[in-house]
Amino acid sequence: VVKVAAHPLVTLTTDFGDASPYVAAVKGVLLSVNPAARLIDLSHQIPPQDVRHAAFFLAAALPYFPPDALHVIVVDPGVGSERAILYVETAGVRLLAPDNGCWTLLPQSDQPRVRRLTESRYWRPTVSATFHGRDVFAPVAGHLSLGLDPAKLGPPVADWVRLTLPSPQMGMNSISGEITFVDHFGNLITNIPAAKLQPPTILIVGRHVFTCRFRWVRTYADAAPGTLVALTSSTGHLEVAVAQGNAARKLKAAVGTPVVVGWSR
Amino acid sequence: VVKVAAHPLVTLTTDFGDASPYVAAVKGVLLSVNPAARLIDLSHQIPPQDVRHAAFFLAAALPYFPPDALHVIVVDPGVGSERAILYVETAGVRLLAPDNGCWTLLPQSDQPRVRRLTESRYWRPTVSATFHGRDVFAPVAGHLSLGLDPAKLGPPVADWVRLTLPSPQMGMNSISGEITFVDHFGNLITNIPAAKLQPPTILIVGRHVFTCRFRWVRTYADAAPGTLVALTSSTGHLEVAVAQGNAARKLKAAVGTPVVVGWSR
Amino acid sequence: VVKVAAHPLVTLTTDFGDASPYVAAVKGVLLSVNPAARLIDLSHQIPPQDVRHAAFFLAAALPYFPPDALHVIVVDPGVGSERAILYVETAGVRLLAPDNGCWTLLPQSDQPRVRRLTESRYWRPTVSATFHGRDVFAPVAGHLSLGLDPAKLGPPVADWVRLTLPSPQMGMNSISGEITFVDHFGNLITNIPAAKLQPPTILIVGRHVFTCRFRWVRTYADAAPGTLVALTSSTGHLEVAVAQGNAARKLKAAVGTPVVVGWSR
Repeated sequence: VVKVAAHPLVTLTTDFGDASPYVAAVKGVLLSVNPAARLIDLSHQIPPQDVRHAAFFLAAALPYFPPDALHVIVVDPGVGSERAILYVETAGVRLLAPDNGCWTLLPQSDQPRVRRLTESRYWRPTVSATFHGRDVFAPVAGHLSLGLDPAKLGPPVADWVRLTLPSPQMGMNSISGEITFVDHFGNLITNIPAAKLQPPTILIVGRHVFTCRFRWVRTYADAAPGTLVALTSSTGHLEVAVAQGNAARKLKAAVGTPVVVGWSR
Repeated sequence: VVKVAAHPLVTLTTDFGDASPYVAAVKGVLLSVNPAARLIDLSHQIPPQDVRHAAFFLAAALPYFPPDALHVIVVDPGVGSERAILYVETAGVRLLAPDNGCWTLLPQSDQPRVRRLTESRYWRPTVSATFHGRDVFAPVAGHLSLGLDPAKLGPPVADWVRLTLPSPQMGMNSISGEITFVDHFGNLITNIPAAKLQPPTILIVGRHVFTCRFRWVRTYADAAPGTLVALTSSTGHLEVAVAQGNAARKLKAAVGTPVVVGWSR
Repeated sequence: VVKVAAHPLVTLTTDFGDASPYVAAVKGVLLSVNPAARLIDLSHQIPPQDVRHAAFFLAAALPYFPPDALHVIVVDPGVGSERAILYVETAGVRLLAPDNGCWTLLPQSDQPRVRRLTESRYWRPTVSATFHGRDVFAPVAGHLSLGLDPAKLGPPVADWVRLTLPSPQMGMNSISGEITFVDHFGNLITNIPAAKLQPPTILIVGRHVFTCRFRWVRTYADAAPGTLVALTSSTGHLEVAVAQGNAARKLKAAVGTPVVVGWSR
């Protein structure tokens, strides 16, 4: 038995850009299948074909939604190829996504329920080679939001693409990692778990080495505007920021830039 | 008899930009008239006053929506002038738009039902000269979504502005056309119908002539990253792309750039 | 007694950017508290930490909404500091905002109802120091949209931050002011009330002095494309624009640029 909400939530995350008729076409097809679906835009500004960025985005966003929301993710450099399209249930999150690893940074159930979409009766009658968002994802999302049993979409699969990401390295009195996300404010979020940190005395971002010239703070407002600060991000990682400024621009840092924190003895 | 949906769909397409309070004001007025309207953003990133871009956008988006959706289009360089504002029903699409031709690339009924908005009782009490989106389009859309008979908006009209667009030219063993849309990925969509194409052996984009150095593919993933490809777009036209890259940037191409495909004998 | 709408309207205005997972997380938390909330994006493109811009944006947008809408504003350079978070009812507008003055350009009741959020039982169990949008604003908005009595959020306060803004100066035969907002089209909106204006004969924008080379018009379309025009903005102020062009770019003008209008005798 599938319980159907009166106005079921369907979220959309794509790399189509906000200027695109592609987003609009996806919405149109989905609402044509289920006019009562309640569409929530998460973002259409995932950098084009950047699966890794999508993975971080989704991990920072999807776990906050109610478990009956359906998340549609179309960041799909392999569109039209043999890559699968998956329906996934894992740790209270339900989603449709290309099998490219974009969902593997989410909290995971011991046994995620994963199916490969094969039943074309739930797709548009004609499927283009370049726009599965409109022709496959949207109508399937519409049907799921109407209460379709996911088992009807296609067979279960036991293997899928996993994103492998660099792990931070523990040293004697330092941790080395890298920047994994740069937000709209230019704040630099790293892959170094903040829970493990004593306030460090040395901070290295790319070629920039800081000893006295940064502060460990609880929040941006704890330092004067323009100060370089390190803090615990809202995702629980080491974050490097400039109070009321843009750390990415100031330090010329980007995703992948190495970051080291150290403790002098 | 007009059937009214419990939460009627109203879509918004403007050139106001996503930073604009103008979009917000339109939403506020519309929801003040009908708090139950379900607003769907299509895009607010139509290039300012670019009616031709709007026309392509709408043709790629509106036909996918359910027929009872109401589409509000505010790309309106003539705001405040004597240009009419139209209510249109054509081929399963209902819309409000300035009379500037932005809807004429949509599939057309033999006899579109078109009315000119003249009944100011459905407008805001004071109408500014520069913001009809807020003062006319939004309240009229609100009333229509409440079930107002469109006949009450104003008299039928039999003539309206039509957008005339360049047609592709057929040669002996070539077709000449131009780029009509550049998407967020830098893919170049042309006005050359792909149905008429055998895989071409010559491709000319602006001053760039390609013979061996491009591939005819079914989808982007069929070629190695960085390869120049030609394919059938999701709208059924010739499309030129760079696999996992940006063709517009690589070829310095834009809307209006000439494109020729040819077949050597 | 609080009347609860079946699908209560909650609007979102932030400086998080449209690429941000932060917006998505706010939506997720809010919908987890009240899955029936109807979310309306106003803008996520408020320039980072620009409280003054937010204040203009809100004044141009919020008054058009139905009075039972709840507006959530997260432009919050002081996040995590001792700055308060306020619930406000003033002149038919209900909102949640940081106590930084962003709501003080709205039409004001004689006695706005203002409370400081202190009751953490309506917050997320763990509150980060850097993301109150997710951890405080979103859950409180969810509870309010469920009909929670605002009196339960915290104690009333009688004082709050007010934004002080430059007033236009009246001269013998001139008025001096400045640009307060630049819209997406590059139109320049000033702080000079248009109601006080006879069509001026002199216009000064920054270092540019115009006597014959501008026109006073009712709307953009009243002048040939490319003409510099002055007119009454949709907010009732003096606006300087270029017909079908971009005045900000043409005059290298921005927020704060001085503007003078004068009348020669």
